[in-house]
Amino acid sequence: MAELVQSAVEAAGAAVASGGGSLGRALRTRPRVGHIQFLNCVPLYWGLARTGSLLDLELTKDTPEKLSDLLVNGALDIGPITCVEYLRHADELVVLPEIAVGSDGPVMSCVIVSKRPLDELDGRPVALGSTSRTSIRLAQLLLAEREGVQPEYFSCPPDLDAMLARADAAVLIGDPALRATLEARPDSGYTVHDLGEMWKEWTGLPFVFAVWAARREFVERRPELVAAVHRAFLDSRDLSLVEADQVAAQAARWESFDAGVLEHYFSQALDFSLGERQLAGIAEFARRVAHDSGFEPDVTVRLLEPAPTA
Amino acid sequence: MAELVQSAVEAAGAAVASGGGSLGRALRTRPRVGHIQFLNCVPLYWGLARTGSLLDLELTKDTPEKLSDLLVNGALDIGPITCVEYLRHADELVVLPEIAVGSDGPVMSCVIVSKRPLDELDGRPVALGSTSRTSIRLAQLLLAEREGVQPEYFSCPPDLDAMLARADAAVLIGDPALRATLEARPDSGYTVHDLGEMWKEWTGLPFVFAVWAARREFVERRPELVAAVHRAFLDSRDLSLVEADQVAAQAARWESFDAGVLEHYFSQALDFSLGERQLAGIAEFARRVAHDSGFEPDVTVRLLEPAPTA
Repeated sequence: MAELVQSAVEAAGAAVASGGGSLGRALRTRPRVGHIQFLNCVPLYWGLARTGSLLDLELTKDTPEKLSDLLVNGALDIGPITCVEYLRHADELVVLPEIAVGSDGPVMSCVIVSKRPLDELDGRPVALGSTSRTSIRLAQLLLAEREGVQPEYFSCPPDLDAMLARADAAVLIGDPALRATLEARPDSGYTVHDLGEMWKEWTGLPFVFAVWAARREFVERRPELVAAVHRAFLDSRDLSLVEADQVAAQAARWESFDAGVLEHYFSQALDFSLGERQLAGIAEFARRVAHDSGFEPDVTVRLLEPAPTA
Repeated sequence: MAELVQSAVEAAGAAVASGGGSLGRALRTRPRVGHIQFLNCVPLYWGLARTGSLLDLELTKDTPEKLSDLLVNGALDIGPITCVEYLRHADELVVLPEIAVGSDGPVMSCVIVSKRPLDELDGRPVALGSTSRTSIRLAQLLLAEREGVQPEYFSCPPDLDAMLARADAAVLIGDPALRATLEARPDSGYTVHDLGEMWKEWTGLPFVFAVWAARREFVERRPELVAAVHRAFLDSRDLSLVEADQVAAQAARWESFDAGVLEHYFSQALDFSLGERQLAGIAEFARRVAHDSGFEPDVTVRLLEPAPTA
């Protein structure tokens, strides 16, 4: 990060020298970057707090939905954006390659808990315990097209017992989903279905819940800086995978899961990569949900080009 | 930090084991800690973003005034508080020893810029370009009691030219003050008076602009955690002083001062310590301004006791 940022600043300095004036001030501004303050993004933050890269970012921590809106509205320059929102605004955004939050099989933290076989949920009440647009859409897609059912959905707080008292099944995301996955018992009267696993079985592809993107005009204006932030996130993720046991141990101090569970979740369940297979997963999801989601089925995913050398 | 937090969590775990219940949840919460997002506190943040300690804090970045209010209102557990506000709420707070933001001589970033000798400002307009309660009070104290003048104060934005167009002198804090200090010229028609230097000449003591404090009830409830946060800040400060050139170089990327200036500012002008002389400085300031500041002249400064061993 240090060298890249230095190059970016030097390149910016050259731009100021030739262009002058108010641009110089703007170029001194730290990039406004979002960070999802959820357990699944701890490994992306971990390294930033180890390398000093955080000092080069104006970081806003919030929920995935809020950060998605901030990026779309231009209040952030770079940040995570949930897959559905990204696809709706693909024209305005450039995706950072090699980094995402997804899964290539069971994800543990995105589930349908059901008292009946899933293919018997037609017309039955299903509780949605999350506002995550991508996860909810994925659950609805899998029930509609893989299981062939059209339940009656309603939203409610993510309390599993309360949800199952009012519904035949419950869609859970995040900590409550992880807890349901870990506490699943044969005699509990319900089955936990992992949305990442269901998607993988159905399509053979990874699922991508969120990508990291930069605003297109920001990339055009400050390509070296976007490259530096991209590199900082990749370095952070890579350090976290190498030091997965330390990441898990530190997170376990503050989370209600033990370090062993967290290490498995971070390094096995979650997939922080974005390569060809993940891009194919995004394209497949786009194709299947486009008709009612506000984007074209063949929406173009624009990836960040390699940085110009300063 | 790691070991201390671990001890703290283990001690907390023991408390849960004996006390049980809802306490366990509370004990899992990261401490809510404030950080001043100004140049003068970069060295206190630098190390937190290098050691990973940030992962153990729920950090709120804001201005000194806002953070002071949040700590007093109980929205933060630990954080910086400007000296005047601390003294007003000394009963509710416990000061972390060995760390503060002050100066033991010229501070560079807290000045009176004057077109006349200071002892000729009686009845003259003086512009206050800051809302910093401690710095403003210090400027007023020095003018009243050291220079023997009672100017007419008014508040305005920190634009030196505009201030001096309407006033005979201007009180500046932060970046505009640092710029005025660096750009002072014999032929400019005004003189830059450093408030830290004036205080030191007058009293022989360092001046403390802000202390770090924890809410008293929080210290009683979670002494090991307060000790861990204290240690994290001390470690961060110590690392920054060792790596002062790196801190300055990284800060210089984003600030409108060069690395040489910043290194001098961080390591020579600012005094991040809080020992007997600094405590004497606080006591002297309290004694001199208590009559109109909302606290007693002999207000007791309660220091954090060494942490109990887990």
